[in-house]
Parts: sequence; structure tokens; C-alpha cells
Amino acid sequence: MNITKAHLEEVLQRIEPHIHRTPVLSSRLINKIAGTDIWFKCENFQKMGAFKMRGATNAILNLSEENKKKGVVTHSSGNFAQALSLAAKSLNVPAYIVMPDSAPEVKKAAVRTYEGKITECPSTLRDREATADKIQKETGAAFIHPSNDLDVILGQGTAAMELLEDHPKLDIIICPVGGGGLIAGTALAVKYFGNNCSCIGAEPMEADDAWRSLKSGKIETNDTANTIADGLKTHLGDQNFPIILENVDEIIRVSEEEIKAALKLIWERMKIVVEPSSAVPLAAIIKEKDRFQNKRIGIIISGGNVDLQNLPF
Amino acid sequence: MNITKAHLEEVLQRIEPHIHRTPVLSSRLINKIAGTDIWFKCENFQKMGAFKMRGATNAILNLSEENKKKGVVTHSSGNFAQALSLAAKSLNVPAYIVMPDSAPEVKKAAVRTYEGKITECPSTLRDREATADKIQKETGAAFIHPSNDLDVILGQGTAAMELLEDHPKLDIIICPVGGGGLIAGTALAVKYFGNNCSCIGAEPMEADDAWRSLKSGKIETNDTANTIADGLKTHLGDQNFPIILENVDEIIRVSEEEIKAALKLIWERMKIVVEPSSAVPLAAIIKEKDRFQNKRIGIIISGGNVDLQNLPF
Repeated sequence: MNITKAHLEEVLQRIEPHIHRTPVLSSRLINKIAGTDIWFKCENFQKMGAFKMRGATNAILNLSEENKKKGVVTHSSGNFAQALSLAAKSLNVPAYIVMPDSAPEVKKAAVRTYEGKITECPSTLRDREATADKIQKETGAAFIHPSNDLDVILGQGTAAMELLEDHPKLDIIICPVGGGGLIAGTALAVKYFGNNCSCIGAEPMEADDAWRSLKSGKIETNDTANTIADGLKTHLGDQNFPIILENVDEIIRVSEEEIKAALKLIWERMKIVVEPSSAVPLAAIIKEKDRFQNKRIGIIISGGNVDLQNLPF
Repeated sequence: MNITKAHLEEVLQRIEPHIHRTPVLSSRLINKIAGTDIWFKCENFQKMGAFKMRGATNAILNLSEENKKKGVVTHSSGNFAQALSLAAKSLNVPAYIVMPDSAPEVKKAAVRTYEGKITECPSTLRDREATADKIQKETGAAFIHPSNDLDVILGQGTAAMELLEDHPKLDIIICPVGGGGLIAGTALAVKYFGNNCSCIGAEPMEADDAWRSLKSGKIETNDTANTIADGLKTHLGDQNFPIILENVDEIIRVSEEEIKAALKLIWERMKIVVEPSSAVPLAAIIKEKDRFQNKRIGIIISGGNVDLQNLPF
């Protein structure tokens, strides 16, 4: 499918009644430290606390009425599990969530809050896929991948569309790279709604699969992923990778220490609760401070769902 | 001095160019839990992270040009030390801050960031007062009390004025009670700008001096104050107590567990960083849930300066 500007406009119009228009914040102190002007699109204030609500909502709204009745299924232990559950609940659609039995109880509880029907399985990717497959066959539910699904990708792109609507003169938008849904959607938004704007990804050194993928031209994976940015451990997919390859200028990698320092800065200076993944773009700017001097930079703050009992400070 | 509506209007007009107009947030999930509608006036987003910036700014702006040159002095180890330092710095006025030598290094560092000149002394009230006195005599600086000063009180009242401007139909405004500056200013704002609105204070059971003061009709103190709401350990003063006695309908006391639960709710659901003192009003609403059903309640979130290394979760 060839994505056009009109597709993205349609998507935003479709999901707008069901999501929050999140605020854009900035901090003079952080600008001073970074030596540049940064606008943070705060998806931590999005419904259920993360941008994933956008893609999940778009994917469900795009189903036929008949398919909506049958429901949706995904495998995820993170924000997408909650997003699909809440979006489905709001739209009166059943949601089946496959979660590894090793997933923390707090994450299972969050899905249950939004009335997602959990099926547990062993934590290998093969088991998750097989379990989702089985549910799909039994219920007729539509499978929706957390990041490698075009409707999801376009939904995630609406955060950058809104940011560019509020701040049309941005030179660069930087977002974290995990499964590739957010960066692919953001890159498309930048392409169609930016004004000489470029899209850059930011990734933990410890899970730099996307950085390596852009170099090799094929999807690379991580053997290990020892990062506090737990939303960024996944790898790219065949739907989002071509979009990323074509539209993302580069990916900047940062260390765990750099992520923690940027995270602390956001919490302390902006007084907002954000997840570690959200701090990766600011860490990238501070790391490569010289080249970003006096630019107008947008950052997508991916979300704010953290375990307060287990903070990295 | 007889305070009028015009006084408060003048104060807001005077300080407006120097402070942030902070946002008012609400959370459907918290409203559901509390069974009522709550609007949070977010002074954690105020300059230097707390409402104290308002009173400090007003007190300095009210000095003669000659006195401004001589500077200001206060004794405080908390937010007011930082607020007076930053307000003075912005207005090009010297600020002398008396701090107990036992104050945490992180608090001294914050004052230095804002270029306050620190003098350390033993931590008794008598030593602090004597040290401030000495500085006053040596420099001619004007002493500004953190809460028991009419200019400070009126400045703090502007948070509630803004809240009532944004939400004129509030039935109740609740704020935490520490030294009495915020509650006295809030009560005056409610009196002159509210529309059948009442003002309630919220206080930790562990530092319930204001609750006892309202009962006895004279200023009571705390023998101990084992509360995580560390901004609320101080007692009322002769400037703010008469205003409180006349204009505050009641004070609700809450336990440490109730404060912690409300604090967690604000962090988790609203994704904002607030100090424990800020959670005391929400704790009071949840504690006395039945009587607040279907009311429109405003809460002053006092600030967001917390030590991330030392959170009560």
C-alpha cells in the first residue's frame, strides 16, 4: 500500500474523538542544558499513559462491524496490551491478550483493569504466536500486532502530526525506537507535514538492533537487551522496516548512564512521570549536543507507565 | 490592615509577569475513585517547582527601590529558601538565606543554583532568628518570613484566584496547611472570588497544629512531626492565624498511610511529580468521600520538589 498524506489525515480524524490531544511542554532549564530548543509531545498524558493508544484505536476502528463483534487479539506484555484492552473496551469490542506467564503481576492487573481477557503461555515468541493463532481460530478475532501493522503505524504517526500542527517550524523530530511502529509513523508524519523537518531515532546501545538494521539493510535482532528502556527491547518488522529505511535519517545510540541522566532531568525539571524509553531522545540530544545547537527539536515522550516501587534513581 | 478584593487583584497583576500561569489538570480515574469532580491547580509546574514563588515575588516587588538594593533575608530550609533566591535573582536583588547546618546538601545546592547567599547556623529556631537578625542589621536587607508575612500570604492567594478564574463554579477549595501562608491566602481568594465556595485545609494527623489551633482559638505547635509531608511541619503565625480563624471552614486530618496512597494515585494516574504535602488534600477527600459526593472541588498542588533518591513508594 502506498501511504499518502490523505491517509494520515483520515487516521487522525478517525481516532481524534477517542484519544486525548496531549499537551506539548518545554523547559527553559533543559533547553539551557541542551543548548537548543526542545518541545516535548507528552504522550505520558495519553489515555492509559502511552502513545500506543493511538495505534490500537485506529486498528480497531478500521475493522468491519462484523469483525468488531468477533474482537481483537494480540500478544504483548507491555503498553500495547493495555492500549488494545482499553481501546477495545471503549469501542465495545472483545480483546484477547496473550501474555507470557512470567509477566509481572502488575502488568496483568493493568490489562484486567481495562477488561482485556488474558491467556497466559510460555514466554517464547513461538508460544506467544501459537497461542494468539489458536485464539484467532477459535474466536475469529482479528490479530493486531503491537508495532508491525500498518493501521497501528499510521495511528502512532498522529502524535507527530499534532506536534507539527502546534509547532510547524520544527527542524527535527526525535523518537525512541522499539518495535518500529512509532518511528515509522513519526517518519511518515514528518515527511508529509514537516517543513524541512527530519526524523531521527534514538535507541539504547544495549538494544541497538534498529541502528544495525539501518546499516545492514535487513532486520537485525538483539541477542541480549540489558536496558532500563524496557519498551525498546523488541525488533523491527517487515511492515515498518521499509518505511524506516526510506524515511528515517539516522539512529543515535545512547548508554544506560546517559538514559538515566536524561530521565532524572525530565522528572526533576519538568515534574512529569515518564518511562525510561521516553528519556532516550533527550539523552541523544545531550550526547551529541554540538550538532543540535540552536535547532528546533520535537521529542515524542512515549509514555509514563512505570513501576513506582522499582525506579532507576 | 484590612484586606480587600482590590488588594488581591493588585497582587496578581503585580506578580503575573514574573510567574507561570500554571495549568489546571483533572483525572477521570481519580474522579471515579473519589466519587466527585476534582480540579488540580498544578503549582508543581510553577517556577522553581512550588507556589512559594508567588509570595516571594510579591514580597520583593513590594519593597522600595532603595530596599531592593539592600536585599532580602529569610530563614528556611525548604521551598521558600529556593523561591526567595530565584525571585530575588530574577529581580536583581541580593538574597541572604539562613539555613540550619543540618539541612540536606541537596537543599543547599538548590539555593546556590539560584544564587542565594547561604549562612549556616545551628538548627534551633532561636539560632535561625538571631542569625537572620544579624544579617539584617549588617546589610539592611528586609526580613521576609516564609509564611507569616502579609505580602507573602497575598501572593500565595493568587494560585486560588487563577483557579477560580478558570473554574468559577467550584464549591470547595482544599489546600494543605503548613506555616499557614497558603491557606490564609487561599481563604482570602475564596472569600472574594468564589461563588458560594468554601475553603478547607488538609493536614497530616502527625502535625495537626492547625486543627488544634482552630479548636482552641490560639496558635498551637507540634511537639513531634513524623510526617512524610515535610512541608507541613511548621506552625501558624500571628499574621496568618486571624485570617485562617475567620475564613477557613475546617481542617481535615489524614494519616500517613492515607497521604501515601493519595500520593501514589497522583503519580500513577496523573503522571505528574508532586511532593507528599500536595497529596494531603486528595487524601482528605478520599477519607471523607461521602460528604464530597458530586461536589466541584479545587485542590492546590503545592509543589513538586522531591528527592528522587528517597521516595516513599
